[in-house]
Formats: sequence, C-alpha cells, structure tokens
Amino acid sequence: MQQLVVGIIGPRNATPEQIEAAEALGAAFGALGLTVICGGRSGVMEAACKGTHRAGGLPIGILPGTDPQEANAYVAVPLTTGLNEARNIIIVRAARVLVAVGNSPGTLTEVAYGLHFNKPVIGVADAAQLEGVQHTPDAAAAAEAALSRLLMSLPVIQAD
Amino acid sequence: MQQLVVGIIGPRNATPEQIEAAEALGAAFGALGLTVICGGRSGVMEAACKGTHRAGGLPIGILPGTDPQEANAYVAVPLTTGLNEARNIIIVRAARVLVAVGNSPGTLTEVAYGLHFNKPVIGVADAAQLEGVQHTPDAAAAAEAALSRLLMSLPVIQAD
Amino acid sequence: MQQLVVGIIGPRNATPEQIEAAEALGAAFGALGLTVICGGRSGVMEAACKGTHRAGGLPIGILPGTDPQEANAYVAVPLTTGLNEARNIIIVRAARVLVAVGNSPGTLTEVAYGLHFNKPVIGVADAAQLEGVQHTPDAAAAAEAALSRLLMSLPVIQAD
Amino acid sequence: MQQLVVGIIGPRNATPEQIEAAEALGAAFGALGLTVICGGRSGVMEAACKGTHRAGGLPIGILPGTDPQEANAYVAVPLTTGLNEARNIIIVRAARVLVAVGNSPGTLTEVAYGLHFNKPVIGVADAAQLEGVQHTPDAAAAAEAALSRLLMSLPVIQAD
Repeated sequence: MQQLVVGIIGPRNATPEQIEAAEALGAAFGALGLTVICGGRSGVMEAACKGTHRAGGLPIGILPGTDPQEANAYVAVPLTTGLNEARNIIIVRAARVLVAVGNSPGTLTEVAYGLHFNKPVIGVADAAQLEGVQHTPDAAAAAEAALSRLLMSLPVIQAD
Repeated sequence: MQQLVVGIIGPRNATPEQIEAAEALGAAFGALGLTVICGGRSGVMEAACKGTHRAGGLPIGILPGTDPQEANAYVAVPLTTGLNEARNIIIVRAARVLVAVGNSPGTLTEVAYGLHFNKPVIGVADAAQLEGVQHTPDAAAAAEAALSRLLMSLPVIQAD
Repeated sequence: MQQLVVGIIGPRNATPEQIEAAEALGAAFGALGLTVICGGRSGVMEAACKGTHRAGGLPIGILPGTDPQEANAYVAVPLTTGLNEARNIIIVRAARVLVAVGNSPGTLTEVAYGLHFNKPVIGVADAAQLEGVQHTPDAAAAAEAALSRLLMSLPVIQAD
Repeated sequence: MQQLVVGIIGPRNATPEQIEAAEALGAAFGALGLTVICGGRSGVMEAACKGTHRAGGLPIGILPGTDPQEANAYVAVPLTTGLNEARNIIIVRAARVLVAVGNSPGTLTEVAYGLHFNKPVIGVADAAQLEGVQHTPDAAAAAEAALSRLLMSLPVIQAD
C-alpha cells in the first residue's frame, strides 16, 4: 500500500518558534505513519525530520547535492539529486500537502510551486503572506489543517 | 563574444497593460542587441518575444514540453526541455537580470528563485510585492533599471 | 540512522528472465533492510518493487509524471517528479550501487550516468555491454556483487 | 521564423581527429544559418562552437553550472542551468538532430537519450557503437547525414 507523502518546508535559518513548530509537525505526521518529505538540510528541515523520526514516521530528504552526508542526522532516506535548488520542485511535486514553517526566498519557491500546482499549502510561524496559503496560528492547528486537506484530496474520500 | 542574457517573466493570462509593457521591454532590450530569455509561451512571454524580435534582438524560449511548435510565433530559438514547470529555474539561472511583468503563481516561482540567487529582479505592472524586488512605474523605467543593474553586475564595470 | 539506497534499473518491456531476476534482486536487498530505488513503473521496475516489498524492504519509485497512481502496485513511497525522463538521473544520483537488469535506451541513460558518476554498475540478464559494467551470470551473483561493491563504497569500511 | 537547432555532442577529452570533425561540423551547420547547441565546455564542445561561430551560425552552450564564464570562448549564448549533468537531457530535447563526435560516459547519456526519444543520432570519429546510431566515416558524411535527417524530420517536407 502506498504511503502518503506530506511536505514540510522552511528556511535553514529558523527561529526557535519555527524549529519548535517544525518538530511538532513532524511528530504529528510521523505518529500517523505518514512519510514526511523535505529538503533534508538544517533548520526547519532538520526539526521536521527529528519530529518525524522520533514519532516513528519516515523522513525523506531530497538533497540538492550529491553526497548523502549533507543530510541532517534525522533523515532516514537521503535522496541526493545533484540538481541544486531545482530539487525544490521535486519536494512540491511529491507531496500531497505542504506545510510552510516560516519563509525565505528558497521556501517561497516551494510555496509558489505548491500554489501553481493547486496543492494545499498550510502556513504557520510567519509563512509567506500569499493568497492561497491557509494560515494557522500554531503547529497543532497547522497539523490539523494539513490532515484535513490531505483527507479531502484523497480520491476515495471525496464527497459526492 | 558572449551575448548578454536578460529574462522577462510574467503570466500567460496578461492584462493589456502587461502585454504592452512586455513588448516595450523586449523592444528596449532587442534594440541593444541583448538576448531575451523567457518561457516561450503566450501572454507576457509572447509580447516580450514580439518586441525583442521586432527590434532585432534574439528571443529565446525555454519551453516546458517537447514540441517546438508550442513556442509562440516570435521565438527565434525554441529550446524544448521536457521538464515541465521545472524549466522555470533555467530561465532564472540563465538571465543576468530579470524583469517581472505582472504576477502569477508560476511567475512567482521565478521571482523567488531570482531573489534566492541574488539576481536583480525588477518589477512592473503589478509584479509581486516582495522585499528585494525593485518596483518601477512603467516599462521605460523598468528597462532603465534593468540595464543599470545589468551594467552593475558585469565584472569589468564594477567600481573599486 | 540513514538507510542505504540501492538502485535497480531496467526496461518496462522485460523478458520473463529479467522479471525473475529483478524480483530476486529486490528480495535480496529487501531482506537486508535496504531501500530500493527505481523508476516506479512496470516491467523490471515492478518486479524489483515486488521483491523488495515482499522481503520487507522499502521500495521507492521515482516517477516521471505527477500522479502517484502511475506507480506500480508495490511502490511504498511514490515520488512524483513531473520531470519526465529527466527523473532517470535522480535514480542514479540517489543510489549507492546500481544493478541493471536487461537493457533499453532509457535504461542505458541510467547505466551511462552511473559510469559517468563512478558508481558501481552491476549487470545481469542482457544488460548493456559497456566497459565499466560488472556483468554477472544470474540474480544471486548480481546481488552478491552489488552488496560487495556497496560495502566497499561505505566510508567506515574502507581499508587503510 | 524559428531557427533550427542541431546538437553536437562529444567528450571534453577529445582526440585531434575529433576536434577537427567537431569544428568541421560546426562550420557546416553554421554556414547554413543553423543554431548549434552543445554543452558549452571544452574539447568537442569548444571545437563545435568555434566552427559554428566562424561560419556565422549561433552556438548555444547549455552549461552545467551557474557561471557564464565556464563557457568556452566561442559560445555566443551561454545558458547556465545549475543542473549539473542533468543539463545533458536539455541538449537532447532541444536538438532536432544529434551528431556524436567520439564517446565518453557523459556523451553516452546523450546518445542514449537521443535514441530513447527517437531523435536521429549520427555518429563519427569513434562514436558509441549502438544500434540506432547512424555511423559515418568523416565529418562531411556526418554533416550530410545530419542535414538529410533534419530535412526528413521537418513537418512541411514529409513525403506523402
């Protein structure tokens, strides 16, 4: 059975609040057995992997370079791409739902691709203020929104 | 001698004001013999190619698909990539300066990549309101700003 | 702890011998808890995922399109890329060792990238006859060669 | 009117015979006003650009990195991609016909992609011995074969 892939995106230079939110989101998704995909580096990405890992989920890191050692310590499956920042689009393509924790130019490329592809994009902890991003006040609300949007997006659950 | 590559980005669904601005920008760059790179499709992209072509410049279209026929009628060099929307990053990487004419989720991915790579990003005609985008009131001002930033970015002209 | 990623590559139109070899290879790698990466489609890819899945390993499919439904039934983690055939390079980049089961133009792009990046490339069941590919007579020999090359490639095991 | 794009591919470490063939091919295509696309680096790529440039054609270099200075001296339009070796597929996608001058693992990725996409692939000067590659004895024969295949591929010229 296919695992469901959820993306957590955010900057390497993250605030304590963003680190905390990313770890809580990873833990919430990991506890449900979801696969969490991210950029595999430090900051929000590391916190997301840490939370996912500790909760028993599968953290996958889509890495810009060619060396699996560039992954943070909590990435279970390091996927080196050698595509540099073009790897961002893969994170967005592979995720059914995206949660943006904070913002940065790199994160913004992912948020914009998410909106471009009509993927649900949830925002928390100073995520980009863009039309189409569903902003939430904290990690718990972001996790709930993400799961709700994930369920809504699954073919079998669509209402008639 | 290498040609200088400038990028014009913007939506397919463009307003008359944006179409006019894109064509004027293409004409301004084309008259200087610059190479104009864009996504090669309709709307802002087509207007940019039209202006560039009519002014004697070289309009290059970086196409998402695999068929050169998907290029607009003014693209001189159609470069099919088969990368779908991942071709956006190539436009940004290849351009020394970007001018955003209007906005859309796809355009926003390019603006965000431009800021991410510290490229000059000029905005006109309702471009994205982001920190780092240099907004200008009209196409003439946008062209002037782009050329100024282009000159500043060339190694030989940097002040000491 | 990072999982070790091994790639199995081969054509969609596969012979019964190739299907059997791919499934045996997936089973050999899966039984060791390895992550098996492949293109996620039918033929050799499906057989590799089937073997990996049944042996308890993690089969990851790097998909050319944007719909996780294009994955075969044994892919645990479908990673849609939207990059079309450019996704081939990601399989090669992410794998520490590649096993080519049979050949086709698409498979050959992966074998050639593997050689280009100095990755170990093992061949079985009519894989490409190229200098640098380590040919083996059957799936058991291919699995043994792949594991040996994998061990040799790990930093901690390198002889001094 | 769209320019016709032809690709010349081959190794950086090239023999004198391959350098000569690449330059002659670039000159043959350039004299016809064709756009020649290549990887933009040294060896076969530089010779192809040199021939194209001297004959008045347009040599475009699809570069792996992010700095236009990595282009050889004869590239007219340097298109930096930042995609590293994944840029190879763009050369293949954008070319209507490919001529392989010599061989190497990197060149082989391009030849294999060309065959995969059913593009005409002409070989000269020790190009890869693969089914589907049309081998020719020298640059003049390779140019003639490439032009013939190019003409055959154009929609307007297809026989009924």
